[in-house]
Amino acid sequence: MADVMTRPFTITPVDGGITAPTGFRSAAVHCGIKAKAGALDLMVLAVDTFASAAAIFTTNLAKAAPVLVSKHHLEVTHGTACAIVVNSGCANACTGDDGLANARRMAQEVAFDLGCEPERVLVASTGVIGVHLKMDRLVPGIHNACSTLAHGNGHAAAVAIMTTDPFPKEYSVSVATSRGSFAVGGMAKGSGMIEPNMATMLGFLTTDAQVPADLLQRALVASARDTFNAITVDGECSTNDSLFAMASGTSGIVIDEALYSALVEAFLAVSRQLAVGIVRGGEGATKLIAITVHGARTADDARQVARTIANSPLVKTAVHGADPNWGRIVCAAGRSGVALDINRMTVRIGGVLLFENGLPHDDAAPQAEALLKHHIVDIDVSLGAGDAAATIWGCDLSAEYVRINGEYRT
Amino acid sequence: MADVMTRPFTITPVDGGITAPTGFRSAAVHCGIKAKAGALDLMVLAVDTFASAAAIFTTNLAKAAPVLVSKHHLEVTHGTACAIVVNSGCANACTGDDGLANARRMAQEVAFDLGCEPERVLVASTGVIGVHLKMDRLVPGIHNACSTLAHGNGHAAAVAIMTTDPFPKEYSVSVATSRGSFAVGGMAKGSGMIEPNMATMLGFLTTDAQVPADLLQRALVASARDTFNAITVDGECSTNDSLFAMASGTSGIVIDEALYSALVEAFLAVSRQLAVGIVRGGEGATKLIAITVHGARTADDARQVARTIANSPLVKTAVHGADPNWGRIVCAAGRSGVALDINRMTVRIGGVLLFENGLPHDDAAPQAEALLKHHIVDIDVSLGAGDAAATIWGCDLSAEYVRINGEYRT
Repeated sequence: MADVMTRPFTITPVDGGITAPTGFRSAAVHCGIKAKAGALDLMVLAVDTFASAAAIFTTNLAKAAPVLVSKHHLEVTHGTACAIVVNSGCANACTGDDGLANARRMAQEVAFDLGCEPERVLVASTGVIGVHLKMDRLVPGIHNACSTLAHGNGHAAAVAIMTTDPFPKEYSVSVATSRGSFAVGGMAKGSGMIEPNMATMLGFLTTDAQVPADLLQRALVASARDTFNAITVDGECSTNDSLFAMASGTSGIVIDEALYSALVEAFLAVSRQLAVGIVRGGEGATKLIAITVHGARTADDARQVARTIANSPLVKTAVHGADPNWGRIVCAAGRSGVALDINRMTVRIGGVLLFENGLPHDDAAPQAEALLKHHIVDIDVSLGAGDAAATIWGCDLSAEYVRINGEYRT
Repeated sequence: MADVMTRPFTITPVDGGITAPTGFRSAAVHCGIKAKAGALDLMVLAVDTFASAAAIFTTNLAKAAPVLVSKHHLEVTHGTACAIVVNSGCANACTGDDGLANARRMAQEVAFDLGCEPERVLVASTGVIGVHLKMDRLVPGIHNACSTLAHGNGHAAAVAIMTTDPFPKEYSVSVATSRGSFAVGGMAKGSGMIEPNMATMLGFLTTDAQVPADLLQRALVASARDTFNAITVDGECSTNDSLFAMASGTSGIVIDEALYSALVEAFLAVSRQLAVGIVRGGEGATKLIAITVHGARTADDARQVARTIANSPLVKTAVHGADPNWGRIVCAAGRSGVALDINRMTVRIGGVLLFENGLPHDDAAPQAEALLKHHIVDIDVSLGAGDAAATIWGCDLSAEYVRINGEYRT
């Protein structure tokens, strides 16, 4: 059994996004929720066969209607689904009973076209909070999408779920195992309101492996921890954040405990690309910041310190201004709630040692300043308290973030 | 006794700041820590007689040297002091053993000039982290200040403690009681890195009442909760945050349990002005936001929801852009960690009802938008869960905040 558990597998990037795995068809249309003519704002992803499904939803107590509906549908179907329908431009959040009815209606319309039970359709929405969906536009859009479903439409789907995202985020891999190959694809939309404990606004993973629902949920949670749940743009956790996974099974490869690690690794490979893409495309972000904390007593301690640094407005603005201000990093660590001794701390920016055992190395500041002008900035903090480590990805805070979010609705 | 406890008192604003109470002399000088010629960067506040003293210090674990020294001095003197020395331009934080020696030296030099024990001198510093104090400039500056101490220099002292503050913050009141009058004065500096759980970067209260050290500490903590600890600029809690109180006793009025409430009310009156001044003068702030949460189960719940809203970058940018985006307010409340039901929530901006029992009142949006253009914005949230309430003061997030903090050191 140990031999089976360690069976080698290889993961190779492939094209195709969510439709890279076989057994998935998708369609993206403009139905008119976004004002801009022709802008894709609705997408349907359908599975050819019976699919197992899993999801992680926002921890925000103000859960949007599509979150409540999808959660309920996964419960009553014990983790199965035949399709997902997603609109952008309107979050259908804080919309009361009418909002719930509209989210259910989205599922019903898709189910009617595909000939499945409405409970087997998952729903997601992203966009402005507190506005009702224009159902007179959405319903014809759903029928239009369902009539044009096709394999290989993944890219258009990734575009259709964008709001203020500067670029679509999709990735896919092929996994070769001794039992044969399967694929994993994914897409995500992010931008603002990105925070650990449901990081992405919306994320979708597909696979043509055959995966029991409980194993799929377990793999999704395991892979999200250091990917979708290890990113932050502005510390906000939205009403709509959702991460879905669907497994079509059409590759014929059955995921059991022996192949579980291959599935998790493939989910990790795809999720990491999407999660980092979300941060890179964060509202107003000009730099990706990878904050690694090691020498912590526990991985949770490391994550908490790294998150506090990643969400510190003063650290974010310093990185934006290419200021090697390690003092703000030490200060953020000090207020993180984790017990630490600054006299045992070291801080490096881009590998350049700036602070060691309570004292600055300011002669190295010019070197660090040069590295801070790159588009990827590594911040490395050691606590000198143990062996645990964690990485959180964040981004800088720019005047552009203020502009985008001060003018979003107006 | 009940009669004594409810003895009336009146509080009237007076001029003078920290030297409004009798028994305090101060001096402010330019010693050269700030680069700008003539910019005041050092202040000494001395008490004519024996003074009781109290303080609240930052909860940040990366405590600056002056915090560690002042904390130690208050402990060994059991809450007495003859002077406070404060420099701006350099925080003396993350400076190791040399930094501690420099902070102690500041106290020693003042003690030498005043003829008291060094432990009876408190120390505070504010400015850049991780830079050593220029003692060759500071020491002559201290002697210069100590030789020019005078009653009524309060305003210059309030200017000397500023860093990026756009204006000095000082306030003072006279308290008339049936036993006679005493005064309370105060000054503060803030700007960035302002956060509840030691809100102000530096705050100082003086009184000429005679107050036992334990009662002074109790009054300071009681008055800070809804003032200095109820404000936030950017959610940062600094290495140097300190709030001091000194009582000269020269008015002859003895504060006992009967007059305790008069002292607390006077501390509250002064602290509220200073705390709100800190938020008004927050880095890049153009609007003061008063967030009141009521209908909470407990006051702590109310505070937690109000703080989460106050620190939400999306709420702050929406207020900056005069966008009546109540959805972001509901969303921030939903992720605050407090159990709540959005179907029982109401949200008002400037008194205009925008969200009630889970549903928007978007017809009122234009009216709220007009009110959001004012310099003071009231956000009122009811949770419908109980009778407790709390107010937190915050400010908007502007491109100017990003500019200030991206260019602070460079």
